Amino acid sequence: MAPIQNARVLFGSIPETFPIPGETTLYDTSQTIDLETEPLNGGFLVKTLVLSLDPFLRMRMRDPSVKSYLPPFKIGAPLDGYGVGIVLRSETAGVQVGKYVYGLTILHQEYTVYPELGTLQIIEPHPGLSLTAYVTAAGMPGQTAYAAWKEYSDAKPGEVAFVTSGAGAVGTIVIQLAKQAGLKVIASAGSEEKVKFMQSIGADVAFNYKNTDTGAVLEKEGPIDMYDNVGGDIVDVAIEASAHKARILACGSIAGLNTGHAGVKNFHQIVRKALRVHGILILDLLPKYQADFYATIPPKLASGELKYTEDVSKGLSTVGDVFLAVLKGTKKAKAVVVVADE
Amino acid sequence: MAPIQNARVLFGSIPETFPIPGETTLYDTSQTIDLETEPLNGGFLVKTLVLSLDPFLRMRMRDPSVKSYLPPFKIGAPLDGYGVGIVLRSETAGVQVGKYVYGLTILHQEYTVYPELGTLQIIEPHPGLSLTAYVTAAGMPGQTAYAAWKEYSDAKPGEVAFVTSGAGAVGTIVIQLAKQAGLKVIASAGSEEKVKFMQSIGADVAFNYKNTDTGAVLEKEGPIDMYDNVGGDIVDVAIEASAHKARILACGSIAGLNTGHAGVKNFHQIVRKALRVHGILILDLLPKYQADFYATIPPKLASGELKYTEDVSKGLSTVGDVFLAVLKGTKKAKAVVVVADE
Repeated sequence: MAPIQNARVLFGSIPETFPIPGETTLYDTSQTIDLETEPLNGGFLVKTLVLSLDPFLRMRMRDPSVKSYLPPFKIGAPLDGYGVGIVLRSETAGVQVGKYVYGLTILHQEYTVYPELGTLQIIEPHPGLSLTAYVTAAGMPGQTAYAAWKEYSDAKPGEVAFVTSGAGAVGTIVIQLAKQAGLKVIASAGSEEKVKFMQSIGADVAFNYKNTDTGAVLEKEGPIDMYDNVGGDIVDVAIEASAHKARILACGSIAGLNTGHAGVKNFHQIVRKALRVHGILILDLLPKYQADFYATIPPKLASGELKYTEDVSKGLSTVGDVFLAVLKGTKKAKAVVVVADE
Repeated sequence: MAPIQNARVLFGSIPETFPIPGETTLYDTSQTIDLETEPLNGGFLVKTLVLSLDPFLRMRMRDPSVKSYLPPFKIGAPLDGYGVGIVLRSETAGVQVGKYVYGLTILHQEYTVYPELGTLQIIEPHPGLSLTAYVTAAGMPGQTAYAAWKEYSDAKPGEVAFVTSGAGAVGTIVIQLAKQAGLKVIASAGSEEKVKFMQSIGADVAFNYKNTDTGAVLEKEGPIDMYDNVGGDIVDVAIEASAHKARILACGSIAGLNTGHAGVKNFHQIVRKALRVHGILILDLLPKYQADFYATIPPKLASGELKYTEDVSKGLSTVGDVFLAVLKGTKKAKAVVVVADE
């Protein structure tokens, strides 16, 4: 079999603020691969099927001197992140051809030889779910929502939860978990379409933060006992509207990712109201909750008991534009790129 | 017996920033009381012995429209706060003459009839401890240090703790609890005298934050796994120096009390480092830890196993000046006013 194209998305340069497709990220088609003869050296060859464009990738587009919990991308090397692929060939024990691999280090290229499983894992997709779900509601964002809720929500029926990015992959699951736990849910997002979606999955109060004042809504419908899925300046508003002993589950902060910092002006209220703020890194919580998650959530997603949405783009060449849209907040839902069908 | 003076400290006006003795607080000697004939109406008469000038009193000097966990002071009425008094007469069951009462609502006046115990409690002072200790290391500040440590420190031997206001009533106890738990302790305070004191109670690294850069110390001696006793802008520095999964025990924020807000610029690192921030209100934790505290801590203070310091002023008329000094940070240690001897 002749060599075929093996397209890649390379890290081109460190962005000042928002990434620039074609500069920050480069779609490159210069490489080829012979799928039959490419040496495996004890590893396994994977065809990339699905890639997730998560906000945290922005944090990896940094100067290497800045430390963080995940390494920076290297200039000239492919990006990597959450994704799903299928095993085409294998010399690795326990990694059979035809199996699906999922994890945090799937390269943004069409075909990749991985020397070992490492942080990747083999998943058994539920027959009623698309593979894309395994990087959204049945993947890291769903796991973040689920594990953070289980570990830190301390939720009691009748309490009030406030969920931002409520139409996003994390927020969607949080809204439904909160409703199932008997809470009143206030949810915000950035478009009328997202507001309708949040209402359809049970949010008691759903609003568009772009044309409605969040503080006014929280004053009328709060105080809030829980705030999930932090983003940017809204933390201040949420703290202001927090009840005594409210919990803040800080799952992400897109604003801080681009501008370098997200400030909170009323930190002193954390003391005055005895608030708890929990920074959530799913990798910390996963060992405790992963088995429970896969047993519980994918079947509910497949049956429709839990709802979710995705914004699917086709082809590796869309990665740069899709990621910019993610950070600008213009995606309709959790962004996924389908690199290839099986 | 003829009526005698019953001096009071009245709340005069809401301060803009720092309180002004003689305006914010008024020392008033216009009232008298006949200790033998003053009607009790089922209550009990207390001679005030000790008053604590805690930073949180500043928060009660606010506009009544602003909500908080404790009520605002009323213009023209006496201040109240933590204190100790002795019962002179009683018509209340369970409150015997000669007993000591302690609590959050001791009026800043020489003699007071309380209609009921309410939030006050009867304490049995340890014979080896002065009464002033019962508003410092054996009182609310000591309880704050102890209960917060027990509930939230999650401390492991070999970890690094950073304690600000390390010569204060809370910090002093925290330093010693941290050392007993096998941690390395970095401690800061605002004078050379306080630095020496912190060294004497076991701090491994003690420095004067007024002439030493806190960030530089933490970069050299950290990263830190725990930060106790938050004050003002140092939160930013502590977050910057925090290790993965560090705990921030936010026991107080004097800066925010006067300027209206204490800001944190790098809130996004709470997510990136999976930090936990715990706002501490001792009243929430007291039911769980009070009995344990009184059984454990006062004997250790009396024996010298745990050390503490106090800055004692004499006479009710000093309250305004002492409180200003507390907020300015010029007191040498936890500030106490001895209103009268027994």
